[in-house]
Amino acid sequence: MKLATLRDGTRDGSLHLVSKNLQSAYCVASIAPTLQYAVEHWATVEPQLKKCYNLLNSGALSNIIAFTNCQLESPLPRTYQWADGSAYVNHIELVRKARGAEMPNSFWSEPLMYQGGGDSFLGPNDNIPLRDSTWGLDFEAEVAVITNDIDMNIKISAASESILLITLVNDVSLRNLIPAELAKGFGFFHSKPSTAFSPVAVTPDELGDAWDGAKLHLPLYSYLNGQLFGKPNAGTDMTFDFTQLITHAAKTRILTAGTIIGSGTVSNCDRSVGSSCIAEQRMLEKIAKGTITTPFLQVGDRVKIEMLDHEGKSIFGAIEQSVICHI
Amino acid sequence: MKLATLRDGTRDGSLHLVSKNLQSAYCVASIAPTLQYAVEHWATVEPQLKKCYNLLNSGALSNIIAFTNCQLESPLPRTYQWADGSAYVNHIELVRKARGAEMPNSFWSEPLMYQGGGDSFLGPNDNIPLRDSTWGLDFEAEVAVITNDIDMNIKISAASESILLITLVNDVSLRNLIPAELAKGFGFFHSKPSTAFSPVAVTPDELGDAWDGAKLHLPLYSYLNGQLFGKPNAGTDMTFDFTQLITHAAKTRILTAGTIIGSGTVSNCDRSVGSSCIAEQRMLEKIAKGTITTPFLQVGDRVKIEMLDHEGKSIFGAIEQSVICHI
Repeated sequence: MKLATLRDGTRDGSLHLVSKNLQSAYCVASIAPTLQYAVEHWATVEPQLKKCYNLLNSGALSNIIAFTNCQLESPLPRTYQWADGSAYVNHIELVRKARGAEMPNSFWSEPLMYQGGGDSFLGPNDNIPLRDSTWGLDFEAEVAVITNDIDMNIKISAASESILLITLVNDVSLRNLIPAELAKGFGFFHSKPSTAFSPVAVTPDELGDAWDGAKLHLPLYSYLNGQLFGKPNAGTDMTFDFTQLITHAAKTRILTAGTIIGSGTVSNCDRSVGSSCIAEQRMLEKIAKGTITTPFLQVGDRVKIEMLDHEGKSIFGAIEQSVICHI
Repeated sequence: MKLATLRDGTRDGSLHLVSKNLQSAYCVASIAPTLQYAVEHWATVEPQLKKCYNLLNSGALSNIIAFTNCQLESPLPRTYQWADGSAYVNHIELVRKARGAEMPNSFWSEPLMYQGGGDSFLGPNDNIPLRDSTWGLDFEAEVAVITNDIDMNIKISAASESILLITLVNDVSLRNLIPAELAKGFGFFHSKPSTAFSPVAVTPDELGDAWDGAKLHLPLYSYLNGQLFGKPNAGTDMTFDFTQLITHAAKTRILTAGTIIGSGTVSNCDRSVGSSCIAEQRMLEKIAKGTITTPFLQVGDRVKIEMLDHEGKSIFGAIEQSVICHI
């Protein structure tokens, strides 16, 4: 199934099923008014949604609307728990190398994860407001999962079953605020403003053999101002898979339905595939040439993040955002 | 007004008005089913609640229930945004001094704040589950505010008006997980499990002259196993007041209705008033005697956090929690 949330003036929007080909949307308010409601009542809601999804794809439903014209929220316009890992350790090692810092060996055995703020996500086509052009605005293309309720100390085997939906992420970052913020010791706050997610979130079965229960084995395409920026495979060089990220997150707490767990910036050791964020590209430039040439995002810049199936068709729809000046 | 959320099997509980003397509760489902709903519709809901509150206090309502028998959630059983400051810089300086670390001077001019997880708060009388007795479980007695919607880059003058409710906090911490977690650079995650809040949240007018629009000038009482542990005044030595904490939090993002902003552990320079967490007491012991004698919380230990008005009456009700073993 593919699920989207249409903007309707309320804080949680209106849940819609979207056809496999991303052409049509169908309001499922009678089954679940919002995605938060759906994940909280998944056992009863999922079979009803599935039945409806089959009818939508077979063309048997009336009252469908064209999906391309819709004003979209992120699938979950807000969430109670947004925890973002940094599972591509290759990416962390590279960033550290560029600034001459050693990476502790423990980074290969225990995930990095930060507590994100989930009260105000941007929609997949919303502009990114930038207050100060010196803050070093960057995109980060990631994959994320949306989970069911999770017990504290959940086992790896149960973690995979807790994954209800998969989505793409633009983890908007303010790079030049990060060093001073992390130096204070309390982690990210200012440097991680509102995040954006892909137009639809999909159930694991939509991904076929590209989803192995813990990783998504497909290239993640990022474009900057219409030019391909990177296409690393999200299933390659992922040091910690989603089941490991989930068990890590649940070490000292329960997690509740609607929790979003992010992969961190997708990055491959094979440099020819490019990068999923500007910071990594800049580090590669610094290492290779000693000078950085790619600037961070400025007002007017456009970012696109998308994933295609084996037939070249968009799975999640595209995150497409422009940077605007916030007064 | 005093507002509480009764446990009713749903995730957000059932909103009740509580009488000024904390004796009676009255279900206000017909006005606002949950506190999250109330803060999202404050302009219309608040006058109706106020009218009802006056009737409750005058004894004019029927269908009231005894508040002391109620099973309580925290006023907001979960929230989309829980950001906890560390506004009593004296406390930070002390903790650093004990471990021989310098504190940057910038800590006096810019608040420390961490992004908390808000999906699963403990109720004010819920047990604190502890998986591993070596994790160094600690309580932290704090004050917090619950806000209305807040624009990015809000001004100090508007920040005070955005404060709808005030509450007490037990910011449960796992002290022995903190050093390794902060050393990784991504801030708190494992070391800040589910937080608990006081039985009621109150509107600023309930606090009379003890609330100056930005600080709460009353002692905050903490008890460990029935013994007074500390009673620092929350209005004394608070380097950053709540309006400063709010503007800090809103530097790069909007904040939405139901946001909780915490003060951090309340701490006074006057050591005779004791401490609001065990870690501070341990640091004072180390500095004074060279050895630490007070252990962190173990299974069976009991914590109580409360604030009294000028007449010695409890304002928020008491957070009273016992530590239990989590298998």
